Amino acid sequence: MSALTSLSMTEAADAVARGEVTSEVLVDACLARIAAHDGQVNAVIRLDAEEAKAAARAVDQARAAGKVLGPLAGVPMMHKDMYYRAGKVSTCGSKIRKDFVPGVTATVLNRLDDAGAVDMGTLNMAEFAQNPTGHNAHFGHCHNPWSLPYCTGGSSSGSGAAVAARFAFAALGSDTGGSIRLPATICGVTGLKGTQTRVPRTGVMPLSFSADNVGPLVRTARDAARFLKVTAGACPKDPTSAKEPVPDYEAALTGSVAGLKIAVVEDWFLDGIDAEVLKAFEAALDVLKGLGASVTRISVPEMAAIGTYTALVSRSEGAAIHANWMREYPQDYAVHLNARLFGGYSLPATFYIEALSRRGPLLRAFCERALTPYHLVATPTLRTKVPTLAETDIDVEPANWDRFMGVSANTRPFNYLGLPTLSVPCGFDSNGLPIGLQLSARPFAEARVLQAGDAFQRATDWHKREPAL
Amino acid sequence: MSALTSLSMTEAADAVARGEVTSEVLVDACLARIAAHDGQVNAVIRLDAEEAKAAARAVDQARAAGKVLGPLAGVPMMHKDMYYRAGKVSTCGSKIRKDFVPGVTATVLNRLDDAGAVDMGTLNMAEFAQNPTGHNAHFGHCHNPWSLPYCTGGSSSGSGAAVAARFAFAALGSDTGGSIRLPATICGVTGLKGTQTRVPRTGVMPLSFSADNVGPLVRTARDAARFLKVTAGACPKDPTSAKEPVPDYEAALTGSVAGLKIAVVEDWFLDGIDAEVLKAFEAALDVLKGLGASVTRISVPEMAAIGTYTALVSRSEGAAIHANWMREYPQDYAVHLNARLFGGYSLPATFYIEALSRRGPLLRAFCERALTPYHLVATPTLRTKVPTLAETDIDVEPANWDRFMGVSANTRPFNYLGLPTLSVPCGFDSNGLPIGLQLSARPFAEARVLQAGDAFQRATDWHKREPAL
Repeated sequence: MSALTSLSMTEAADAVARGEVTSEVLVDACLARIAAHDGQVNAVIRLDAEEAKAAARAVDQARAAGKVLGPLAGVPMMHKDMYYRAGKVSTCGSKIRKDFVPGVTATVLNRLDDAGAVDMGTLNMAEFAQNPTGHNAHFGHCHNPWSLPYCTGGSSSGSGAAVAARFAFAALGSDTGGSIRLPATICGVTGLKGTQTRVPRTGVMPLSFSADNVGPLVRTARDAARFLKVTAGACPKDPTSAKEPVPDYEAALTGSVAGLKIAVVEDWFLDGIDAEVLKAFEAALDVLKGLGASVTRISVPEMAAIGTYTALVSRSEGAAIHANWMREYPQDYAVHLNARLFGGYSLPATFYIEALSRRGPLLRAFCERALTPYHLVATPTLRTKVPTLAETDIDVEPANWDRFMGVSANTRPFNYLGLPTLSVPCGFDSNGLPIGLQLSARPFAEARVLQAGDAFQRATDWHKREPAL
Repeated sequence: MSALTSLSMTEAADAVARGEVTSEVLVDACLARIAAHDGQVNAVIRLDAEEAKAAARAVDQARAAGKVLGPLAGVPMMHKDMYYRAGKVSTCGSKIRKDFVPGVTATVLNRLDDAGAVDMGTLNMAEFAQNPTGHNAHFGHCHNPWSLPYCTGGSSSGSGAAVAARFAFAALGSDTGGSIRLPATICGVTGLKGTQTRVPRTGVMPLSFSADNVGPLVRTARDAARFLKVTAGACPKDPTSAKEPVPDYEAALTGSVAGLKIAVVEDWFLDGIDAEVLKAFEAALDVLKGLGASVTRISVPEMAAIGTYTALVSRSEGAAIHANWMREYPQDYAVHLNARLFGGYSLPATFYIEALSRRGPLLRAFCERALTPYHLVATPTLRTKVPTLAETDIDVEPANWDRFMGVSANTRPFNYLGLPTLSVPCGFDSNGLPIGLQLSARPFAEARVLQAGDAFQRATDWHKREPAL
C-alpha cells in the first residue's frame, strides 16, 4: 500500500502546504487505488479523473507562485452522490434521479472548493439515503473493504468504503439516523455528525429536514475538526442553518481528557449488545480512564420514548418528500424502499406532531440526566458485529427486517436529540470487521467530542489499520 | 348610554392621564353596563369587580401622587378566558378545564399590567377556541349585542360582544383562523391579528402553534396600535416570539392613505359573496379611493391551495394537543368539537408536512402577486351576512356544517400566510348586523394596516355606532 494514501486528511493537507508532496501526486495515488480495488468495493459512482488532476495542478501552481492556500488545499476527496454540483449529474443513488442535473451547487461543496479541496467525483450510497446498510439495487451494493461479503453500513456506503480503502482522504456523508456514523464504524474510519443544523444543507438532497445532517467521513478526529471548521456556519441560503459561531475545533485538540466526565447510558444502548462489541467498548473506556477521564454508568429512563419517536419523524418527512414520485414512479424504487415509504403514508399527523413536540422536553431530560453532570455520553456505535450484505438484505428476505432496522438503533436517538456525535474506530471483531466508539456532547459542543476522539486516537492505533484489499 | 363607555380605549387612557376622569369611575361605568346587559349577552365568565376597583384606585392614587403612568393606565379591560393568570381559574371555555388554575401568568397579561391596564375578569369563548361562531355548550352561547338571536362570531365571542356592548374598552382575543377578526366584524368592533409570532404566546392556551395569534378587540385602529405596541415584542420565555423590533405604531397613524396601493384579490375572497356585504365592501373601497388610495383587482391563482392547506395545519395540531383528553374525557367535549377533533386523528402526517412545507413558497407567491406591487390587500372579513346562532349550530343540526365552516373562509388564509390583518367596521346589513373590512399587509407591516384602518375611521363613523341594548 502506498504510504501516501495512508496519510490522514490533515497530514495530506499539511504535506501539500509544506511542499512535501504535490496535490497531483496525491490524486494519482488515489486514482491508482480506485483503479486497483473499486471493481471489488464498488464505492465510486462517477470518477472525474481529468478534472481532479487539473484542479490538483492548479493548487500546485498556486503554491509554487507563493499564493496562500486554503486549509484543505490539494486534498483529494470524493462525496456521497447527493451533494449537488451545478451541471453535474447527482443520482442520489436512485433510478428516478439517475439523470438529474442540478442547477445549484451545495453550500458545503462551495466551502470545500474555497478551502482548496480537490473533488474527484461521487460515491455510492443507499437509494435516496434511505437505508442503514449500504444496499443499492440500482448501482450495486457497496462492499466492505475489510471483507467483501460484509455490508459497509449506510446510507453513506461509498463514503465509508472509499475512505477505508484509501480511495480518498475525506468524503462527505449525510446522517439522518446514523448514515455517517454507521459506515464510519463499519468501515473502520472516523465519522462526525454535528449538532442539528450546524452545517448548511443548501444543495443537498433532503430526506428528513428535522433530522438531516451534513458531515465528513475521514481518518481521524483531527481531520473531522478541520473539515467541520471549513464547512460549518450559517448560510444565508439555508435559513435553518445555525447562527452559532464556529470555533477553531483543532485548537480544542489538546490531547488531554484529564477530568473529563463520561457517562455510559445503560438503557437502550446496551440492549442485546454483542459480547465482542461490549468488550471493545469497555476497553475503549479503559483507555479514556487511563488518560484521566472518569466513567459513570447512568440510567436515562426516557430512552424508550426517544427511541420510539426517532423513526416517526424521519419516516413521516421522508414519505412526504417522496409523495409525488411514489405516485408516479413507485416501480422505480427498490422493493424494500417502496414498502418503507408506503408505510410512511399511514402515519397520523398527530403522531408526527407529538414526536416533534416532545423533542425539546426529551432533549432537556437527556441533557439534565446525562450531559449536565457529565461532559460526554459514550456508547457502542453499532450493537452487533458487522452483518453481511446477505444477512441484512430485505429485498431478498423480509425476515431480515429486525436485523436491518437494528443497525441504526444506537445512532438514531442522536438525530432526534440533535446532539453532536462522533464515531471512532475502537477495535475489531472475530470476523476482522471494525468496531466503533460513539461519543456525544451537548448541542454545539463538537469541540468536546473531537477533543476526546483525538485523545483516544493519540493513545490507540485502530484508526491507522488498513484493510488488506 | 354613558358617554364614558362610548370613549375609545385610547380616549379613555388619555382622559385618565389628563385627569379628566378617574379609573374608578371608568370601572364603575363598565360594571354598570355589565350588570344591566350581560344577562342577555352572556359575555362574562368571571367578574373580578372588587379587584378591578382596587386596581383602579391604585392608578388614581398614583396619578394623584404625580407618578408616571403607563400608556394604558386605568383602562378597564376583560380578556378571553384562556390567558392564564397565576392562581386564577382559566376555563378555556371548557368543561375539562373548568377548575384549571395555572401557575404562570401570560406574558401579554404581564405587559398589560405593566402598562397600567385594569383587568376586570374573563370572557366567554368557544370551547378551547375551536369554533368560529361563538357557540358554547358549557357556559352558554354568547349573544350578539346588535341582535340577540345572532351569533357573535368566535372563537373570541365574549371579547367581541363585551367591546361592542361597552362592557370594557379592550379585550384580548386569540386568532388561529379568524377568532379575533370574526367577532370583531360580527360585533362591529376593530380587531387586529398581528404577524404570526408578533405577540408572545407564553401562558396562553394553545390551539395550533403554527397559526395561533394573540391580539386585541378594541374600538378603533388607534386603540389596536397602542395595544399592539404594549404587547408585541420578543419574550425570552417564548422562543417562537419574533425578535423583529416593535415600532411606534401610533406614530404611523398619519390620517393619510394618499398613494397607498390596495389590491382586491378576486379569487377565493369574493366566492359566493353576499350582495349587501359586497356593496358595503365596495363603498369602503370608495372611501379609501376618495382619500387618495388606488384600488386594483388582481388574481392570485394560489388561493385555492392556500385555502386548502390552512385548515389542515390547525386541525392536525389541534388534534395532537387534545390527544390525551380525547382519550380520557371524550364525553366532556361538545358534540361538534369531539367530532372535529376526532377527524383530526386520521389526517396523515404527510399531508400536514406538505401543508407546512408549502407555506413558505405560497407566502412568497402571495406577496409577489399581491403585496409587492401593492401595499395592502382588502377583502370582506365575512362573505355572508351575520348568521344566527340557530343557523350555525352544528350540535343541533349537522347540516349547518357548510355555513359553520364558511364563517372563517376569508380569515383563515391569513393565518396560514401569517400576515398582519386588521378588521374594521364598514357598514350594516339589512338585519342591522355589522359588516367588516379586512386589510392585510406584508409580514411585520402592522403599521400599514393600522394607518389605513385609522384613516378609514377618521372618514367614517361605523366604529362609533353602538348597539341599542
